Amino acid sequence: MRVARLDAPARQGSLRRHNLGLVLRELAVAGPLARAELARRTGLTKATISAYVEALQAAGIVEEAPGAAVAVPSRGRPASPVRLGSGAPVAVGVELGVDFVSACVTAPTGEVVGMLRTPRDQRSGDPRDRLAEAADDVAGLVASLALGAGRVVGLGVAFPGVVGPDGRIRSAPNLPGWNGLDVGRGLAAHLGRLGSGERLVVETGNEADLAALGELWFGEHPELADFALVSAEVGVGAGIVVGGRLFTGATGAAGELGHLTVDPDGPACGCGSKGCLERYAGLVALLEGSGTADIGGLRAAADRGEPRAVSVLARAGTALGVAAAALVNLLDVPVLVLGGIYAELAPHLAGPLAAELQIRAVRHLWDPVRLVTARLGAEAAVRGAAGLVHDRVLDDPATYLPEVLG
Amino acid sequence: MRVARLDAPARQGSLRRHNLGLVLRELAVAGPLARAELARRTGLTKATISAYVEALQAAGIVEEAPGAAVAVPSRGRPASPVRLGSGAPVAVGVELGVDFVSACVTAPTGEVVGMLRTPRDQRSGDPRDRLAEAADDVAGLVASLALGAGRVVGLGVAFPGVVGPDGRIRSAPNLPGWNGLDVGRGLAAHLGRLGSGERLVVETGNEADLAALGELWFGEHPELADFALVSAEVGVGAGIVVGGRLFTGATGAAGELGHLTVDPDGPACGCGSKGCLERYAGLVALLEGSGTADIGGLRAAADRGEPRAVSVLARAGTALGVAAAALVNLLDVPVLVLGGIYAELAPHLAGPLAAELQIRAVRHLWDPVRLVTARLGAEAAVRGAAGLVHDRVLDDPATYLPEVLG
Repeated sequence: MRVARLDAPARQGSLRRHNLGLVLRELAVAGPLARAELARRTGLTKATISAYVEALQAAGIVEEAPGAAVAVPSRGRPASPVRLGSGAPVAVGVELGVDFVSACVTAPTGEVVGMLRTPRDQRSGDPRDRLAEAADDVAGLVASLALGAGRVVGLGVAFPGVVGPDGRIRSAPNLPGWNGLDVGRGLAAHLGRLGSGERLVVETGNEADLAALGELWFGEHPELADFALVSAEVGVGAGIVVGGRLFTGATGAAGELGHLTVDPDGPACGCGSKGCLERYAGLVALLEGSGTADIGGLRAAADRGEPRAVSVLARAGTALGVAAAALVNLLDVPVLVLGGIYAELAPHLAGPLAAELQIRAVRHLWDPVRLVTARLGAEAAVRGAAGLVHDRVLDDPATYLPEVLG
Repeated sequence: MRVARLDAPARQGSLRRHNLGLVLRELAVAGPLARAELARRTGLTKATISAYVEALQAAGIVEEAPGAAVAVPSRGRPASPVRLGSGAPVAVGVELGVDFVSACVTAPTGEVVGMLRTPRDQRSGDPRDRLAEAADDVAGLVASLALGAGRVVGLGVAFPGVVGPDGRIRSAPNLPGWNGLDVGRGLAAHLGRLGSGERLVVETGNEADLAALGELWFGEHPELADFALVSAEVGVGAGIVVGGRLFTGATGAAGELGHLTVDPDGPACGCGSKGCLERYAGLVALLEGSGTADIGGLRAAADRGEPRAVSVLARAGTALGVAAAALVNLLDVPVLVLGGIYAELAPHLAGPLAAELQIRAVRHLWDPVRLVTARLGAEAAVRGAAGLVHDRVLDDPATYLPEVLG
C-alpha cells in the first residue's frame, strides 16, 4: 500500500520535551494546579511532575501559588498549587492591516500584557520601509513593558493575504506590492534585539485564519471546536477550524471566500471573475451601495430602517448565505462565527443568511448550522497570532527551555 | 491559552507497536527490502530490526526473499531481503452501490487477491435483507480464495451517502431507507465467521472519500498528495485529500459537491434547493438533457458531434467549473481528479471546466489547477475501502499481532 506520509519513529529523547510541554499546557489552560492534579491530568507520575516543577521553578517559569484557588480542590492533605510565574515566556502578536499596525504581548495563558493599534498606510512607499516602521512600533510596545531579558519567545504575524508554506506572501489583492515578502522573518530581523535572538519562533499567517484561532482560544465561546470565522474588512475571508486545529489546505490558501462565485453572471470583480461574494458583501460594496461613509453609519442607517441600507444588507446577507452554504457543504463545519465588520452588522445579515443556509446547506437535514457573533472584534487576529506562537512552543518547549531540558 | 486538544503523554509501552507498524508499512510500500535498508528507512537499529523480523517470520507475516530485486541494492556484503509473506493479513473492501455490490480482497501492498461485482438493487425491500445478501456475496468471494484461518484483518465499506463519526448513515439521498444504519458493523456481524472474530477492524466511509484514497494509494499518479476527486454516478461528490490524508470535516460530511449552488436562481432540485450542481452535471441531468440511454451512448454521441450531447456536456463542464472553483478556493487543492462517469466524459468536460477555473479560482494567479483523469474506474472506492483497513492496522498493528507484541 502506498501512503504519502511515513512517520518518524518515536524515540525516548523526545519524551521529556513532549511531557514538559503537556505540563506547561495544562498550567496555561487551567491556571494554578496542585502537583497531584497535574499528575492526574497528564498521566505522568507524581515524582516526574515534582522533578519537572523543580526545574521550571529554578528557571522562573513556574512559581508556587500557595493561596491560589485551584481548578480542582484537594480532599486530602493541603495541596501545593503551582502556576506559570513572572518569568514565563511571552509572545508578540502583530497584525499588518491595509491601513494600520496592531500589536500585542501575551502570556501563555492568553492574558494580554500590552496592546497597541496605530494608523499606518501599508499601501504607500516601499514595503521594506513599512516593515521597519512596524518594527519600531512593536519594539516601542515591548520596551514599555520592561519585560526583562529573553522573555520574548516568538513573533506571530497576521497579514491580509495568502501566506505560502515558506512564510512568504503569495497573493495580497489589497497590498500587491508585498508579494513575495517574508514579513515574519523581515520583522524578526528588526526585532532581534528583543532578547531571544536566533531562537525566536516566527509564525506568519493569514489574518482570517489567525482571527479564527483568536476566537477559538480567547473568545470564551462554549463548545467551539469546528467552525469557520467568516469576516470582512476591505476583503472577505474565512478562517477554518476543524477538530480544534486550523485548516489551511495544501499551501495555506484555504478559506478564500471573498472570490467565491455567488452568481456566475453577476457584476465584474477586480480579480477578473464575475459575481464574487466581495461584490455583494465586501466593505466597498456595502458602503457604496448604501451611500454611507463607514460601517457605524451603515449599521445606524439600517437600524433606522432606511431603505437603501436595509436593501444592501439584505442583498449582502443573501449572497453571504449562498457562499456560506458552499463552505458548509464542502468543509462540513457546524458553526459559522461572524467576525470583522459582520459582527457589527450581524443583526441585519443573520436573517437572510440563515434563510439561504436553510435550503442550501445539506447538513440542515440532520443538524442545522449555528450562527455565532465574534467576541474579540479587531483584536482577534493579533491575539491569535501571539497564541499561535505559544501553541508552537508548547508543542516543543526546547526553544526556550534549553537549561531545563539539560 | 485554551486549546481543544490535549495530547496524551508518550509512553514506552506504545513504542514497540508504533515501530513495528513502521517496519510493516515500509515493506508494504516499497516491497522487498534488506534488513539494513529497513533500519535506514525507519531510523531503528539493525538489532531491533532483526528482532522484529524474526518475530514476524515466526508469525508467517514476513518471509525471506533471497532472490528478490530490492528497492535499494546493497554495496557491501550480500543483502538478505525480506518481504511480506503468504501469512500477511488481508483486508476486505466492499462497496454498497445504489444498484450493485462490489467487493475485493487485498494484501497490505494493495495487490488485489480477489474481486467481484454483482448487480443488486439496494433500493428495494428491507435494507437489513440487502446487507445479508451482500454479506453472502462477500463470504462467497472470501471462501473462493481459500485464505486460511485468521487472515482477514478487517472490513472497509464504501457507501453512497454521508457517514457519521459513529459509523452510521447520516444522509443518503439515493438510498433514504438506509438512514441510521451502521452498515459496516452490520456486514461485520454477518461476516464474523471470516476468522478474526471480534478483532475485525471495521471502517465505513463515503464512496467518494474512499475512491479518493483508492486513487491516491493505487492509482499510480505521480506526485499526488493534495487533490479532490470529483466524481459522479447518480449523485455528484468530492473526496478530498490534503497532505496525503483524507479530509472529511467535523462530522464526516465534507465534500458535498452535488448540492453546491451553481446558480441561485437555477432549476429546482430534489433536495429543496435551487441551481444545485447535480441538476447540471449529475447522471440524470446528463442523460435526460442529451436524450441518450447511458454514459457510453452520451460519450459516443458527443464524439460524433451531435448538438444535444455537445451542448449538455458544455453546460455540465461550465457548472462543474463554477463548483470546482469554489472547492479550490475554499480547500486550497492544486489538483482535481475526474472520476466516476466524469473520467469517461473528461475529453468533453475538461475545456469548459478549465475555462471557469481560469477566471474563478484565485490560485490561478500563482499556480493553476491541474486536471487529471482517474485511473481505477469503478474499482477505486472498493480498493480504497480495503486500503483504509490496512492503513488503520499499520498505525496500530496490535490488532493482528498479539503474539508478536507479546
